[in-house]
Amino acid sequence: MNATVVKVGGSLLLYPKKLRSLCLKISEISKEQKLIVVPGGGEFADVVRCLDKSFHLSCNTSHRMAILGMDQYGMLLSDLIPGSIATHKFEEIECFLYLNKLPIFLPSHLLNRENPLENSWAVTSDSIAVYIAGKLQVTKVLLVTDVDGIYSSDPKTFSDAKLINNLSACELLAMNKRTSVDKALPKLLLKTPIDCYVVNGLFPERIKFVLAGQDSIYTLIKG
Amino acid sequence: MNATVVKVGGSLLLYPKKLRSLCLKISEISKEQKLIVVPGGGEFADVVRCLDKSFHLSCNTSHRMAILGMDQYGMLLSDLIPGSIATHKFEEIECFLYLNKLPIFLPSHLLNRENPLENSWAVTSDSIAVYIAGKLQVTKVLLVTDVDGIYSSDPKTFSDAKLINNLSACELLAMNKRTSVDKALPKLLLKTPIDCYVVNGLFPERIKFVLAGQDSIYTLIKG
Repeated sequence: MNATVVKVGGSLLLYPKKLRSLCLKISEISKEQKLIVVPGGGEFADVVRCLDKSFHLSCNTSHRMAILGMDQYGMLLSDLIPGSIATHKFEEIECFLYLNKLPIFLPSHLLNRENPLENSWAVTSDSIAVYIAGKLQVTKVLLVTDVDGIYSSDPKTFSDAKLINNLSACELLAMNKRTSVDKALPKLLLKTPIDCYVVNGLFPERIKFVLAGQDSIYTLIKG
Repeated sequence: MNATVVKVGGSLLLYPKKLRSLCLKISEISKEQKLIVVPGGGEFADVVRCLDKSFHLSCNTSHRMAILGMDQYGMLLSDLIPGSIATHKFEEIECFLYLNKLPIFLPSHLLNRENPLENSWAVTSDSIAVYIAGKLQVTKVLLVTDVDGIYSSDPKTFSDAKLINNLSACELLAMNKRTSVDKALPKLLLKTPIDCYVVNGLFPERIKFVLAGQDSIYTLIKG
């Protein structure tokens, strides 16, 4: 399918004004290009993570609870993105695109049914967005977050950390360190021919540039 | 149906050890009596409430998001209550009871479909539990929370606040003040012949006494 999956990261919930601008930009772009929004987890998943620590839940339970957090965020996004429709039905996505509506896919029903990914905190909405893109036969995914991309080392700790412009899934796997994307992502990308762009949603113009294939600031992970 | 709906309040998430004991007690009682667990919202709904304040969501969106919080808590409870099964399917409840399993009802699918209650923060899991009990033709609901029941005034502010042993839905409506149950409950009980017991889940024995019709500490709201 000639479309792009745009995962809107949960970290952006911390910047209400900027998230609103980003959502307006996404709505604007969707009039020109086919987009499918997949929500992140953010605070909704953080509550689950925290309670998982005190209650030592089973992997399956905490995984399912966190995915419901994505549904919650998707519903919130549907209020912020004009012209969007939130849906649990995978088969409706193509139909909404045809009707020039912007689908926000709420993944809990599909993932409960198929349960295709490891049930652990290594799998977050990054991997889930790529899985959904794979099912849709979409080859471009934007992981919209609150940082500029993937760095050579943690920029909060190391002043010489450099933004990586592009790397292969294999190289990301070999880096074997905590980055702004989830731990399961590189392995999943090794199996899936998808290009993932990690882009900073606090600068909505960048989303537009990346989608137009123009120069901008991001990290491209080649699948 | 000869069964009792037990709503396990979200406030009990703040007491992990005591919530575990309560869950074991509920499991134990369910071997003798038919129980249906309905989850509260707790921290899961609080995140929604907080984000609703910063994003001014539509009533329908925040209502649906908060109900997903009940699903999340229900999944957590299914890990803590031995012999329980969490289900979204209303029609499975009776079947599980017949098989001597304890159903935990996850309400989001039913409520999305029927949307029977006011979409506002006046409706919380208390009213939802009573609505579900009404649909099941169950006439007894336990609202298990972290306080002893409903007081004549706020016991945190007024030292002379008295626990009310029982009152009618009409009297509760006339009180017209914030209590430990939600604002929409009295009106709903006026239309539904259900007896609601507000019981402190930090003392699990009380649940047993109330269910056995024995003397204990609680507030009975007669519908």
